[in-house]
Amino acid sequence: MGSPVHRVSMGDTWSRQVNPDIERERCKQSFDVERLTHILDRGAQNTALRRKIESIIHSDPEFSLKDIYFMSQNERYENAIRKKVHLQMIAQHLGWSEEGPELAYANRALGGDVGLNLHAVFLKALRSLGSDEQIAKWGVLCKEYQIIATYAQTELGHGGTYLQGLETEATYDAATREFVMHSPTLTATKWWPGDLGRTATHALVLAQLICSGARRGMHAFIVPIRSLQDHTPLPGITVGDIGPKMGLEHTDNGFLQLDHVRVPRENMLSRFAEVLPDGTYIMLGTAQSNYLSMVVMRVGMLLTIVLPLLQKACVIAMRYSVIRRQSRLQPSDPEAKILDYQTQQQKLFPQLAMAYAFHFQAVSLLEFFQGSYNAILHGDFSLLPELHALSAGLKAMVSDSCTQGAELCRRACGGHGFSKLSGLPSLVTDVTASCTYEGENMVLYLQMARFITKRKAPNQVSPGAINHLGSPQQCWVLIRIQPQALMAETQALRQLFIPHSSAWALRLRGHGPHVSRGKQGLGERRHWPHPDLLLLCAAEAHCYYIIVKSFTHALEELENEPAIQQALKRLCDLYTLHSILTNAGDFLHDGFLSGAQADMARTAYLDLLPLIRKDAILLTDAFDFTDQCLNSALGCYDGNAYERLFEWSQRTPSNTQKQANPAYEKYIRPLLQSWKAKL
Amino acid sequence: MGSPVHRVSMGDTWSRQVNPDIERERCKQSFDVERLTHILDRGAQNTALRRKIESIIHSDPEFSLKDIYFMSQNERYENAIRKKVHLQMIAQHLGWSEEGPELAYANRALGGDVGLNLHAVFLKALRSLGSDEQIAKWGVLCKEYQIIATYAQTELGHGGTYLQGLETEATYDAATREFVMHSPTLTATKWWPGDLGRTATHALVLAQLICSGARRGMHAFIVPIRSLQDHTPLPGITVGDIGPKMGLEHTDNGFLQLDHVRVPRENMLSRFAEVLPDGTYIMLGTAQSNYLSMVVMRVGMLLTIVLPLLQKACVIAMRYSVIRRQSRLQPSDPEAKILDYQTQQQKLFPQLAMAYAFHFQAVSLLEFFQGSYNAILHGDFSLLPELHALSAGLKAMVSDSCTQGAELCRRACGGHGFSKLSGLPSLVTDVTASCTYEGENMVLYLQMARFITKRKAPNQVSPGAINHLGSPQQCWVLIRIQPQALMAETQALRQLFIPHSSAWALRLRGHGPHVSRGKQGLGERRHWPHPDLLLLCAAEAHCYYIIVKSFTHALEELENEPAIQQALKRLCDLYTLHSILTNAGDFLHDGFLSGAQADMARTAYLDLLPLIRKDAILLTDAFDFTDQCLNSALGCYDGNAYERLFEWSQRTPSNTQKQANPAYEKYIRPLLQSWKAKL
Repeated sequence: MGSPVHRVSMGDTWSRQVNPDIERERCKQSFDVERLTHILDRGAQNTALRRKIESIIHSDPEFSLKDIYFMSQNERYENAIRKKVHLQMIAQHLGWSEEGPELAYANRALGGDVGLNLHAVFLKALRSLGSDEQIAKWGVLCKEYQIIATYAQTELGHGGTYLQGLETEATYDAATREFVMHSPTLTATKWWPGDLGRTATHALVLAQLICSGARRGMHAFIVPIRSLQDHTPLPGITVGDIGPKMGLEHTDNGFLQLDHVRVPRENMLSRFAEVLPDGTYIMLGTAQSNYLSMVVMRVGMLLTIVLPLLQKACVIAMRYSVIRRQSRLQPSDPEAKILDYQTQQQKLFPQLAMAYAFHFQAVSLLEFFQGSYNAILHGDFSLLPELHALSAGLKAMVSDSCTQGAELCRRACGGHGFSKLSGLPSLVTDVTASCTYEGENMVLYLQMARFITKRKAPNQVSPGAINHLGSPQQCWVLIRIQPQALMAETQALRQLFIPHSSAWALRLRGHGPHVSRGKQGLGERRHWPHPDLLLLCAAEAHCYYIIVKSFTHALEELENEPAIQQALKRLCDLYTLHSILTNAGDFLHDGFLSGAQADMARTAYLDLLPLIRKDAILLTDAFDFTDQCLNSALGCYDGNAYERLFEWSQRTPSNTQKQANPAYEKYIRPLLQSWKAKL
Repeated sequence: MGSPVHRVSMGDTWSRQVNPDIERERCKQSFDVERLTHILDRGAQNTALRRKIESIIHSDPEFSLKDIYFMSQNERYENAIRKKVHLQMIAQHLGWSEEGPELAYANRALGGDVGLNLHAVFLKALRSLGSDEQIAKWGVLCKEYQIIATYAQTELGHGGTYLQGLETEATYDAATREFVMHSPTLTATKWWPGDLGRTATHALVLAQLICSGARRGMHAFIVPIRSLQDHTPLPGITVGDIGPKMGLEHTDNGFLQLDHVRVPRENMLSRFAEVLPDGTYIMLGTAQSNYLSMVVMRVGMLLTIVLPLLQKACVIAMRYSVIRRQSRLQPSDPEAKILDYQTQQQKLFPQLAMAYAFHFQAVSLLEFFQGSYNAILHGDFSLLPELHALSAGLKAMVSDSCTQGAELCRRACGGHGFSKLSGLPSLVTDVTASCTYEGENMVLYLQMARFITKRKAPNQVSPGAINHLGSPQQCWVLIRIQPQALMAETQALRQLFIPHSSAWALRLRGHGPHVSRGKQGLGERRHWPHPDLLLLCAAEAHCYYIIVKSFTHALEELENEPAIQQALKRLCDLYTLHSILTNAGDFLHDGFLSGAQADMARTAYLDLLPLIRKDAILLTDAFDFTDQCLNSALGCYDGNAYERLFEWSQRTPSNTQKQANPAYEKYIRPLLQSWKAKL
């Protein structure tokens, strides 16, 4: 059992005593929680380093998250900038590099509540799209914060979804060897980039390149926007904040209009395309190369931004559910913990299972990315289409599911989940944003589906895992295997996603009717007249398949950890069964399940709930979020939710003000006394 | 075609011209929009009155919603109180009564952004639970605002879900003929009541009655909490704000602790139970009578609070979707309106169909309530169980579905839906709250299910519509009818919900195995070992049945309006098909649909989308929300979304401040110049 020292709470007197209701959950441990934490951290040495960084961050009062729920948008912004500058000072002092694990762990400890997050996005884009000279020059300026940079892609009229539609223009002027950056319309206004509204000095502006009279598609240009002397907008630049949002209050999302702003020829990032001084355009990569920065961001965001939001929501909801008691199961019993109700388990456990399933999938995607990124940078684009499709589809499924999951966790806490002090509302709004930024999810699913459609020869080494979709004949064989498989054999259950995803891929490729099985099966979907929904279903089915496969693979690697393997196998089975039952209509329709098998799947699913119940707190403890990082009155390690909720609420400004409610003198008293006037 | 004069926008210069993309949607009208508005208002005279009230409200600058998205929680609160007091003055001046339609229309025009909303809730509870003398006495005090009242039920440790668990105590002291009101624990603290934190002078406190040593269950007590002289908390009262929330910023949701506070015997509401001076307890109603106030609130909230939030979200998303263009369907075409994509239609049209389906259901529930409320007040409780079950189940389904629907609409607007200026975030957070307040939805579903289970004899006159669940034999006959029905016959389609809901009700009553149909069908669900999920499924199935039935009934009454009937029939069919496809696994499993029929249902569903597409703007215009009431940069009548979004964003405080960003001098400049120190 790991020492909970690193999770110590906020020093309130009542927090020295752990709530016995949560303590009891931890006294019998079916597996070593600390060991599972090491696995999630990918190594005990990483856990140790992470905790070291967390203790540095949490022991520094400059980084306290204590009052952020009471702050205005403007206060959140200033607070986030202050913390970022302080963090930068510490990083420099302790020698943490911009790319090293220390800063990543520090950001985790701070829950992302720091400013200048787009600076790192700029750096990633620079490294993906810039020439070696450009990386050398601008990389140093960034690392030393001689400039503060952002990434300006989205426009008022076009999102990251249809980049060809971006209207901002970069017209090359060979006479001066400059690009003229211009927003020709209102809808061309850059809209949403973080740090743009009030902070950044430079923006990487994605714009349509026009040179020698020809339009050459989207390219990236470094544009200075604010004076390095006094921070005022430079000539031709109109810039400001886009206003209040439902989340991300600490970020100054901004707008930018360019009025014939000139930048030197060298400011176009030119790893994959170049404009020569005379205006000749030279393509060095493919037409898709400049989308590489989107791929990099989508891969990066899953593990560091999206997934922790669901994991934290699970931690908070689970801990609250073992100290909240409601109704008696028997008249003589005390009220039951709400986590002992099947309905509550059914809300929360599938989310916990997803949090683990997505973790192993995101790690596997990251490894694939790390293995292929360098090759792509050096001109070998063979893996780019697969990386693009995988990162697109998985970004869509993970962000969609994490959003639904976090909201389910929030709702599972009843009214208290509506209080910002629970921490849940900000988790939900932040994860919701991820469904839209870096590409709208529906469109990303379609991109993955088009890859499945086009793919001809299976690539045996790739984790893209469309090998099994090789030919209709192959798929057909796979499909026939399943109906005989025993439902109890979960390995066989997981295999069900092979024919399921194959069936959708085949329909997509127009093979549906050719492999008709008569009364039941694929043939009957021939009435399906509209392609978009078909593409969507195929992409989702493929994502399920990949995720189940990577979770299964992760389990196999835990042979030497039988206790942990057993606990995680239950989650893997639950994820699998939940996915099957959620799509039961398709499985039944296509004959991969009979009605009897569907019933057995539901029974197996329900039977898992009490088994997972025993480990529920341990499985969330293993994520090892500190109380400070959770910043939740409901979800702290000690389970003292009511005490903390009451105490935190007392810090509300209207409760701490000594003077009376100003609305009383102005409005309430006149109202209460107006009846006297009628007497 | 109705004159859009009442929808005029906010006087911006560019708004004098309607966006041609939205104008084109309105030039060919397949039905009379104005007439549909009259139907939704339940009479042309209501439409006229509503618009008259709206013009009074909107022409008064005191009621402007213009800057609410930029306000802090405290500013929102003061603003809401100010508006309420002003509204009250106008109501008094114009002779609007507390219960009349004028104030209801005024609240609609103000989007609920006024204070003292719990005052009306107190009045409703008083009228449901108070004796005639109590109603006379306290009713006048309320109507003249000699007091400001709230309704204090929920506690820190118990929600409205398990009222038996409430801990607040009211102990009768026969010596002084008083009740001693007391919060014995921290978790007994009243938590969440609106207007409690900073405003109310009196609270209706729900507490456990203890008299003559016996516990008598939950009763309602009027407790003065703040001085009518100077508004300070009275002795024994600890009261304040519970802090920041994810929505409802304008409301001072509060907490209340009672330390042996004494109130006179007459302050216990005594329509259904009384404590005599000597402490004798007399029950006049049933054990459930004191739950009547919950029923009243659940019925009332659907039409006036919950449903308009979904309707507005539909209006905004639909209007934005015809002016937003993205991607070309053909290379030579202009970019297409996003509403022309099947994926967008598929997101939005089911929400629009729900908005209509729920409207007709809510009207029908209201009529049932109006017909039975008086009888209940006068001691005839025969319809109370049905009213309770119906209002519980429908509150759960409508608030759940409206929440999902509004969030879908928000997400369908991409990044702009994340901006508060779109109006969508506040619609979503407000509707989300309705899933929890007035009873947690899961628990409400279970209450409806228990009614279905217990119900013995069908009541032929009731709209509760469980008549068809009379006996297993009857149901069995109904079930057998369906598989032969033609899918194209939508009337037959709608009938599918009869066997569907019957099947679940039968399983609930333990009849599953007895009506086994062999290989397929009900019998196979015998493996289902856990009752809660079964109850949930049965309640949901019953709700679908009731809603489809009331929509069908509403269509039948439109015989003289064939064009409107046709437009709404498509929505009814879409709602029906969408509900069937959402639950396809069950329909297939139980043999009510074959795979081929499921395919036909999907085809029919997809074929409806382009038909509804033509009417989409008209069907949302018919809700007749003013631009001021929508308060959305994306969703105004004229379709000038980009211009408005840009202009509104300029009002962000940080954009209007003349001085430089204070964070620059404090943090950003030192950071940008720190590299110089290293030189």
